[in-house]
Amino acid sequence: MADPLRHHGDVEARGMIDLAVNVYDGPRPPWLDAALRASLDAVGAYPDPTAATTAVAAHHGRAEDEVLVTAGAAEAFTLVARLRPWRRPVVVHPQFTEPHAALEQAGQDVTPVVLREPFTLDPALVPADADLVVVGNPTNPTGVLHPAAVLAALRRPGRLVVVDEAFMDCVPGEPESLAGVPLDGLVVLRSLTKHWGIPGIRAGYVVGDPRVVAGLAQAQTPWSVGTTASAAVVACTGAEAAQEARRRAEQIRDWRENLEKGLADLGIPHLPSAASFVLARVGDGVHARLRERGIAVRRADTFPGLDGSWVRVAVRPPETTDQLLAALAAVHPRRRLAT
Amino acid sequence: MADPLRHHGDVEARGMIDLAVNVYDGPRPPWLDAALRASLDAVGAYPDPTAATTAVAAHHGRAEDEVLVTAGAAEAFTLVARLRPWRRPVVVHPQFTEPHAALEQAGQDVTPVVLREPFTLDPALVPADADLVVVGNPTNPTGVLHPAAVLAALRRPGRLVVVDEAFMDCVPGEPESLAGVPLDGLVVLRSLTKHWGIPGIRAGYVVGDPRVVAGLAQAQTPWSVGTTASAAVVACTGAEAAQEARRRAEQIRDWRENLEKGLADLGIPHLPSAASFVLARVGDGVHARLRERGIAVRRADTFPGLDGSWVRVAVRPPETTDQLLAALAAVHPRRRLAT
Repeated sequence: MADPLRHHGDVEARGMIDLAVNVYDGPRPPWLDAALRASLDAVGAYPDPTAATTAVAAHHGRAEDEVLVTAGAAEAFTLVARLRPWRRPVVVHPQFTEPHAALEQAGQDVTPVVLREPFTLDPALVPADADLVVVGNPTNPTGVLHPAAVLAALRRPGRLVVVDEAFMDCVPGEPESLAGVPLDGLVVLRSLTKHWGIPGIRAGYVVGDPRVVAGLAQAQTPWSVGTTASAAVVACTGAEAAQEARRRAEQIRDWRENLEKGLADLGIPHLPSAASFVLARVGDGVHARLRERGIAVRRADTFPGLDGSWVRVAVRPPETTDQLLAALAAVHPRRRLAT
Repeated sequence: MADPLRHHGDVEARGMIDLAVNVYDGPRPPWLDAALRASLDAVGAYPDPTAATTAVAAHHGRAEDEVLVTAGAAEAFTLVARLRPWRRPVVVHPQFTEPHAALEQAGQDVTPVVLREPFTLDPALVPADADLVVVGNPTNPTGVLHPAAVLAALRRPGRLVVVDEAFMDCVPGEPESLAGVPLDGLVVLRSLTKHWGIPGIRAGYVVGDPRVVAGLAQAQTPWSVGTTASAAVVACTGAEAAQEARRRAEQIRDWRENLEKGLADLGIPHLPSAASFVLARVGDGVHARLRERGIAVRRADTFPGLDGSWVRVAVRPPETTDQLLAALAAVHPRRRLAT
């Protein structure tokens, strides 16, 4: 593994029963498929994100200058990292490692703030001189949903707070989202990848402080958001999408309850999750033993603050979850001692 | 016009007869359309450029570590601009302004080398201490095809030569292309946008010195090349594509001869072009008078080294070209004096 910060679940899932990748496990909605296919008729023209920008602004009740459509959240991380020479950029861990990696890639010297179990946010841990604070909500891989008010309170004069809400679609009603709340010095990143199951289409957006959004736009490569990605953004922020988004969020919640109950029945400690994955302390060596049985869960030792005793398990339909639980029953150390 | 370096033909063409945008004016080949549509079935997985990298390497007879697939040439310009803090980056003008703009966007201080008519390359104009030299071949907007040997001779120890071959597909047989020639300190940029008429799909690549390619890859945002773009690269570097690429190049040459003959008949000076556009000196004010008649050609005064007397005319099928020539006959100053 070259760089642990650049390790991702998709590498682990190849050829396996996939509980490693956090992408919604259901068919593509017909209206989204139709929008993607129709967009191919328009790729003879240069891409234009105007309609997508308008759609995102309407969706979150924001002004258009508070929105920047991006080629996935990954582009947004790069733009944030390169926005200015950060004096003290802070990444709150354990969390998705790409923002940290993007900052390092841009030559920035990152200060990690590593939370302890149960991984709730302690604002006192953030250094007073931090001029950038990146935090995920709900956080990958812990599944912790931070209160919006706690995140908003991280703001300081001269500081930018970046809230990665790539998994906020999993939370029915999104009560802790800041995407619809105008706040100076704060931007929210969103992604279409997970909830809509389209990681191959690079589609996401930034919404927040218009001065920050303007700065990020200034650094964006021209035409970086392709025609198909813009079409996906329009489709996934429309009225038809809202209904299906809610249905998926509720289904994920139900599937997750099934997974969490199964883990509890096996006596496997795990964190209560608000997202489409659960961080479970299965014990050292279990990750590898599951692989031997053709089951991929996400190793968690590449996340700062976690070790090899943890794995991240994607929320899946009960039939897939049950395969995992059966395998865990066989390989989990405590279980093995008991049998 | 906010930034002349960021002015592009697509803005000029809206609602007009379009001779401003340099995209091939013909239907999408069925095999390409099929590849794009099939790619949508695979966007549920994270994008993987491996197959595209292999295809490009085979196409140009290069090793895979000499190839980096990019989200269009635009991403490649950004990666080059950010590769290192350039001491003396040189852009040879007049040429496509994006490399210059990308360097400025990255905070680099560009030294322009402005060629004079007939815009052939005089290597003596390039400062000896230039550590980056960016040149287009054939050059947009002049249409000049520089000899490969002249470009190769620009190389120096510690200098990177970047040859933008976005329009090389227009040249039947590509005799002056350096894409297949391994040379230290030189990379070639290619784009699928123009020849294949898919600017909405961000697809291009870098091919050249493997140490430079590795450096550019290091700065690339993860998953920046979408699944559809990778599929397009595979399709457009295959055997079926080679035949059609050649046919298009020859058709562009025929269409261009028709345009150049028409301009000559009207007594309008123009540069002999190797590309899918012709730089013509129509005289001041003609650009606007053509617009009044619903015809968009590309203003050229936004290119360093040119002024309002020049326009760039896209090569189009004869019926479109004839509409332009008829309008030029009516509005061209010399012609008007003569009638």
